[in-house]
Amino acid sequence: MDAPNRSTLWGRILIDELAKGGLEAACVAPGSRSTPLTVAAAAHPDIDVYSHLDERSASFFALGRARRTGEPTALICTSGTAAANFHPAVMEADQAQVPMLVLTADRPRELRDSGANQTVDQPSLYGDAVRWDAELPDPEPDERKVRSLRTTAARALAETGGVDPGPVHLNCPFRKPLEPVDVPGDVPESFADTLAGRGRSGAFVETAAGVRSLEDEQSQSLATALEAAERPVIVAGPADPVSLSTLDPAHVVSVAERVGAPILADPLSAVRFGDHVDDGSPEKYVCGGYDGYIDAIPAPDVVVRFGASPTSKPLRHFLRDSDARQFLVDPAGAWREATFTATDLLAASPGAVFSNLLEWVDPETNADSDWIEQFRDAEREHWRLLEEARADEALEAHPFEGSVLATVFQRAPDPATVFVSNSMPIRDADRFVRPRATELTVLANRGASGIDGITSTALGAGSVCDEPLVLVTGDLAFYHDSNGLLAVERCDVDATIVVLDNDGGGIFHKLPIEDFEPPFTEQFKTPHGLEFDSLAEFYGLEFERVGPVDFADAYADSLEREGTQVLSVAFDSETNHRTRDSLERRVRDAVEDARTDSA
Amino acid sequence: MDAPNRSTLWGRILIDELAKGGLEAACVAPGSRSTPLTVAAAAHPDIDVYSHLDERSASFFALGRARRTGEPTALICTSGTAAANFHPAVMEADQAQVPMLVLTADRPRELRDSGANQTVDQPSLYGDAVRWDAELPDPEPDERKVRSLRTTAARALAETGGVDPGPVHLNCPFRKPLEPVDVPGDVPESFADTLAGRGRSGAFVETAAGVRSLEDEQSQSLATALEAAERPVIVAGPADPVSLSTLDPAHVVSVAERVGAPILADPLSAVRFGDHVDDGSPEKYVCGGYDGYIDAIPAPDVVVRFGASPTSKPLRHFLRDSDARQFLVDPAGAWREATFTATDLLAASPGAVFSNLLEWVDPETNADSDWIEQFRDAEREHWRLLEEARADEALEAHPFEGSVLATVFQRAPDPATVFVSNSMPIRDADRFVRPRATELTVLANRGASGIDGITSTALGAGSVCDEPLVLVTGDLAFYHDSNGLLAVERCDVDATIVVLDNDGGGIFHKLPIEDFEPPFTEQFKTPHGLEFDSLAEFYGLEFERVGPVDFADAYADSLEREGTQVLSVAFDSETNHRTRDSLERRVRDAVEDARTDSA
Repeated sequence: MDAPNRSTLWGRILIDELAKGGLEAACVAPGSRSTPLTVAAAAHPDIDVYSHLDERSASFFALGRARRTGEPTALICTSGTAAANFHPAVMEADQAQVPMLVLTADRPRELRDSGANQTVDQPSLYGDAVRWDAELPDPEPDERKVRSLRTTAARALAETGGVDPGPVHLNCPFRKPLEPVDVPGDVPESFADTLAGRGRSGAFVETAAGVRSLEDEQSQSLATALEAAERPVIVAGPADPVSLSTLDPAHVVSVAERVGAPILADPLSAVRFGDHVDDGSPEKYVCGGYDGYIDAIPAPDVVVRFGASPTSKPLRHFLRDSDARQFLVDPAGAWREATFTATDLLAASPGAVFSNLLEWVDPETNADSDWIEQFRDAEREHWRLLEEARADEALEAHPFEGSVLATVFQRAPDPATVFVSNSMPIRDADRFVRPRATELTVLANRGASGIDGITSTALGAGSVCDEPLVLVTGDLAFYHDSNGLLAVERCDVDATIVVLDNDGGGIFHKLPIEDFEPPFTEQFKTPHGLEFDSLAEFYGLEFERVGPVDFADAYADSLEREGTQVLSVAFDSETNHRTRDSLERRVRDAVEDARTDSA
Repeated sequence: MDAPNRSTLWGRILIDELAKGGLEAACVAPGSRSTPLTVAAAAHPDIDVYSHLDERSASFFALGRARRTGEPTALICTSGTAAANFHPAVMEADQAQVPMLVLTADRPRELRDSGANQTVDQPSLYGDAVRWDAELPDPEPDERKVRSLRTTAARALAETGGVDPGPVHLNCPFRKPLEPVDVPGDVPESFADTLAGRGRSGAFVETAAGVRSLEDEQSQSLATALEAAERPVIVAGPADPVSLSTLDPAHVVSVAERVGAPILADPLSAVRFGDHVDDGSPEKYVCGGYDGYIDAIPAPDVVVRFGASPTSKPLRHFLRDSDARQFLVDPAGAWREATFTATDLLAASPGAVFSNLLEWVDPETNADSDWIEQFRDAEREHWRLLEEARADEALEAHPFEGSVLATVFQRAPDPATVFVSNSMPIRDADRFVRPRATELTVLANRGASGIDGITSTALGAGSVCDEPLVLVTGDLAFYHDSNGLLAVERCDVDATIVVLDNDGGGIFHKLPIEDFEPPFTEQFKTPHGLEFDSLAEFYGLEFERVGPVDFADAYADSLEREGTQVLSVAFDSETNHRTRDSLERRVRDAVEDARTDSA
């Protein structure tokens, strides 16, 4: 590899090594200091470059792409505040275990803390939110330095993955010239050969990450506990991208069947949707309505959990308020355990654990125990009452946002990727979206659960899959990342964007602050009166306002059309919450009645 | 001070103490965890609360307000990524020495690193970009804790100011209930009295920050060096907010007059505009055109500099390429010295230094030396050629963005606040804006020099002054902080917003990358084709497209109207740069010719 100057050389080697290590995409924000990286990435045949004008949106786009694929996406920016704009997405990547490689260009070291322009303290900028951070040495055509550069590139990629995927930060100082202009003698002709390296075409260092499995006796012990349980429960929490791709949900269902355990499947787990779901009524094992009824169910005695902390607060309280033995399966051995109820931490891949369990749990099933029937009855009531509430006439009288979520998932194509915003949409998806035997990839930013970067994350996920992309978001999140909409055209992503517009922070109606006026409306509900049609026009998107009852048709229509449509469904958030509450009460009453009847 | 529960008590005491310490404004982004802070701030009669929906825009708005006043503005947000969205503005506040107090709400300590929702590692989130950071103890009605809370509040405010103003971060954990709901017994009745404190109405701890002055012999030594100089120069760099308010530019002019030194006054210094400027032609001491001609001037022998590193690169090179004795005056004793040319660092307030110097420099003036005449001649040529290029016909044939900057400042009301974006607008202001005897407060984000948060910073500055606000920005910066436009209505700010729209990153035409296609257009110039009329409509702003020649009238018209107008002036950035370059050549040739003639 030759180069007209050392900065160009450095950028080329770094990008070359990352590509050899498997990096396939980089999100780039324009800037001068990052020129060696940008030029090298843009010229590399194996790297897709996505150009973004707002670094914050760029970083969430990269997050979304990495979340969808489980493979690291690179981020490239210039020096200064640009790098700080990546911080929220880096934080989310940390918490949600999404691989991401942040390459921040920097001015030469001697300018740091010198009052020089656009020069801030970039090393360790993201604190402990990154798995690893390092600063590259000054570019120089020196063989040891180049070896170190290629090794650092390999290591950086490896550190984004493994059992605890997450973001990695390389700070990259460059001096002028940054452009590929010829600087005679800067890179000796003779140097090109040395760089060819080890005489093979692959990565400088090939890396392989092992998978953690339980020892046989540990598997057996878990199997014994499950078999002996009278009220066992399997909880599938939100999945990280790697678990998503390594867990076979059919194994989870088989275990559940053998031990008679309901699977309480978070919409963000890999379990609520897919071939393994029995679409019968009621579902045989996979439960999706627990958020509406779980507090009417007796406490479990054995729990096996995997994935992150469940979205459902009633479910978290159900787990907290039991004396059950609770096995927490985590591939990184992370103590993601906010209710502090685990009794056993199993540091192993959930995929490996369930596949091994099948060798240890007895195929003689107690699948149709009273315990599992209670969940089947509850599910039946939950979905029946939901459909009742969603019947056109009822919905017209008492509209609620959950009905839109139900439609989005019921009518989603097979396969599809559905991205759900934080705040109310993900909670409504949790409660109102029925398990389905469909290949749906459901994503959200559930690490730090911000409402920032939602649109960009969704479009990033959509950029890498051929299947339809649906985003369900709220008006505040849609406003917050309006800049992200630029990626629709610049990065050529087709999507159906559903905006649940309740003019402000609807979730605050769920909280006691609702009763304090002022400051409720001005500081919490924060109605803004924004009409999103002109925003859609600004970004060249089709826009349609639809009512809750007409939503299904408009949605089906959008799914069939090319291009990106924004479907805005207006709700009054207070009405929405009252309907939501009353439906919850009816479900709970029905479940309690059923229990009383059977007792 | 009584309260229905301990979280409410904590919020009230903290906000009360901050208000007593002089805090007048808080920018608040809605969230649940921050409820005790938000409720207390909204209820406090002495604190103006600005509600923002995007934390990034909120933080730049706070930055702008603090930059305009020199007084700290508080920022309040909920836990999680919200706090990371403040990071770019915190970084800018650090570098630009703007006082800012960041209050991040947090979940209780025991939930940290537990997998709990919306819980990240917030203490020390901003690394060394803050002057001080601390975490509040758990709220509790305990006298020592309350003393510590009030003391921490006083200290936090004090740490934002002093000789090195900047951001301070308090992380504030709260547990439920967060709302002012009654929790019997949580705050004992008897506790109210203890809190009344010291029986006086002021702050718990009154703080006073001293000002650093030079000792007499140090002043004398500086005076002697200046008097002995043959080619002395005073460089007024970009001012921090405190220097802006404590420096009397008339003192600088008096010193300049006595020692025969031109004042090379950055547009962001407190010196280019004001009563002290002699509006004659040529200006007597205050020079503004140096960016166009300075490299045709011989090297100085003594330099006195204050403020940050000058915006003008030719000026920085002029300073670098001399053997002059260079005195750097910095109130914090900071080594803001990216060219590493200072020979003497004077840790003292520039205001104090110049006022003292008047006692030491001889009133017998060498004001009309050949040296100062060279600058007068150069200024004369510079402004004459600029006006020639700006004559309607010339401008029609060769439009350039600098002409708009010239108009903005020439026609700006007296007084006015003018905020100038980074990238090209500030460089054009530096070169094309003539010193004027007008009270213009010129601001920019010149700490880290990002193009993020520009609109919000400007509106934040405008929120606190009664005079007209003008923002000059580019299309990329305008897009980048489009969310900031929401503050026009929500925070009731009137502005004239001038968008220099060259459809992408015009500055890259100044750089060698221009010659590399690809990737020049796609990765650097990044044309986006956005039409800002629909964006303006989205935010309810008046919008007008004007040509370079018609700009002056449209601008004057907007200044007379209520409300906020967006004036978009389209440029082709390549044409702009060619005109700019050719004008620069003509100025330089004229200055060189004049020197040759007089030699």
